[in-house]
Amino acid sequence: MYYIGVDLGGTKIAAGLVTEEGKLISKKSIPTLRQRNYQEILKDMANLCLEIIKDNNLSVKDIHSIGVGSPGLPDPENGILVYNNNLNFKNVPIRAELQKYIDLPVYLENDANCAALGEAVAGAAKEFKSSITVTLGTGIGGGIILDGKIYSGSFNAGGEIGHHVIVADGEQCTCGRKGCWEVYASATALIREAKIAAIKHPESQINSLVNGDINRINAKTPFDAAQNGDKTAKEVIDNYFKYLGMGIVNMVNILQPEAVIIGGGISGQGDYLLNPLRKILDDESYGLESAKTKLKIAQLGNDAGIIGAAMLGK
Amino acid sequence: MYYIGVDLGGTKIAAGLVTEEGKLISKKSIPTLRQRNYQEILKDMANLCLEIIKDNNLSVKDIHSIGVGSPGLPDPENGILVYNNNLNFKNVPIRAELQKYIDLPVYLENDANCAALGEAVAGAAKEFKSSITVTLGTGIGGGIILDGKIYSGSFNAGGEIGHHVIVADGEQCTCGRKGCWEVYASATALIREAKIAAIKHPESQINSLVNGDINRINAKTPFDAAQNGDKTAKEVIDNYFKYLGMGIVNMVNILQPEAVIIGGGISGQGDYLLNPLRKILDDESYGLESAKTKLKIAQLGNDAGIIGAAMLGK
Repeated sequence: MYYIGVDLGGTKIAAGLVTEEGKLISKKSIPTLRQRNYQEILKDMANLCLEIIKDNNLSVKDIHSIGVGSPGLPDPENGILVYNNNLNFKNVPIRAELQKYIDLPVYLENDANCAALGEAVAGAAKEFKSSITVTLGTGIGGGIILDGKIYSGSFNAGGEIGHHVIVADGEQCTCGRKGCWEVYASATALIREAKIAAIKHPESQINSLVNGDINRINAKTPFDAAQNGDKTAKEVIDNYFKYLGMGIVNMVNILQPEAVIIGGGISGQGDYLLNPLRKILDDESYGLESAKTKLKIAQLGNDAGIIGAAMLGK
Repeated sequence: MYYIGVDLGGTKIAAGLVTEEGKLISKKSIPTLRQRNYQEILKDMANLCLEIIKDNNLSVKDIHSIGVGSPGLPDPENGILVYNNNLNFKNVPIRAELQKYIDLPVYLENDANCAALGEAVAGAAKEFKSSITVTLGTGIGGGIILDGKIYSGSFNAGGEIGHHVIVADGEQCTCGRKGCWEVYASATALIREAKIAAIKHPESQINSLVNGDINRINAKTPFDAAQNGDKTAKEVIDNYFKYLGMGIVNMVNILQPEAVIIGGGISGQGDYLLNPLRKILDDESYGLESAKTKLKIAQLGNDAGIIGAAMLGK
């Protein structure tokens, strides 16, 4: 049996054929064209799934189920997307709509939860029963896996780990609160702090690496400069590690998962990122036990969402 | 069938006879006399259990199991108390030792987890499948119940919700970190802030209520003064609510339980405490769903630990 996983994004819809072991063997994507109504978007999604089946010389009866990961709030029980602000979706019957075109079970979950499940089934968290996947991007995405399953709280909207306050009365967050973790430890936060440092310290390599155009600073720039020995960049990075580590230790003290998996572009820094975080976790986690939690880099990149969505039906 | 629950404290050992429904029908306690070795302490504990059985005209065969709640780190699988710093216990075989005197199954858990289970089985969280019990005392104790069961993390030491940082670089916590929730929202924190305010504002009722002896200020003092209209006390209390609410919203955003139960002496304030916390949760929790989490006052007081310990075997 094979599984189909779909990642419903604001720009594109990506779908893939996945084995029982969580191996992605074929994938394909189409533009979302999000101005359209949901019927058109979901008809395209169904056709994309059917194409993938055909491309792989399979038929619908070789497929166990389709899983869809989407931002926003899912109602997994009823297969309804309660809201997805990106697509302007409100109470969209994903399951019923897809089943107009394909006679298969359809599962639905939040995309960050799917990414965490993907890593848990076939990626960095494969060997662990419980894990938290922390994705560092525009914000901080989080997915909690307990006993091999997605934990999404009582109302399907838990796991919003980016929105826990670590700096009381701190910087404004998009969620309305002040001082949320993601305001200090997302990729966006790192870029913001690198820009501020670049302006304050014109001699810093953060500037020379972008030929003085601070708008070209990305999350990699301060890491590159720091690794070249730039003092200003090193300070920016150390400060970033401090806040990132603070939230990770918070998660570990509360949930004590077997592993915390770090994803998103910044995770490309590998051990340069993991080693200081490991030290913070060893120094600061509560009691002797929490330091047993492993820290690892995510392995599946953008495929995690497709694989996790596919595995919803498993 | 009946169940016996034991609360192993630093000062006293309290045990009780509990029905299948979680009703405490008889309890008794003895001093711990913690300077003794564990064999003597546990012999006394066993005798206390036997006495309770006898007092109620029951015999050992009427008892399903004994559950023991203790501070520190339990190894529930093996019935071993890995450590309990209060009693200077290290790898103490609670189960094996009690079974020398009573032939019954023996269960072991952390005392804060037992209190949360007690509230979940027979107290304020009875109607909810998932809940977090937050006990405001010297520190902040926490117990997480998911799907009716204690969630204690991968290494039996999770749920340390008091030790998540809400004020980066804030006040020193006993755990080694800075700015933990319990440094701002425990009863100790409230008393500390009330004392500071009393010194700064000699005219405040906080002073007159204790006849000018600030060492007599307890957690109730600022509440009493605020309810009498004292401005300084009102500020202390509002500030306390702010930090208490901040951590509660953090927990809800991450775990989204059906209910958060507030225990400890301060919870005696009832709606005066719940109403402002409810407003903070409504205003600040992430998305529309998290505001569905109920906030309630704990119902079982100190009995929660005994009842929860008893229910470990259920």
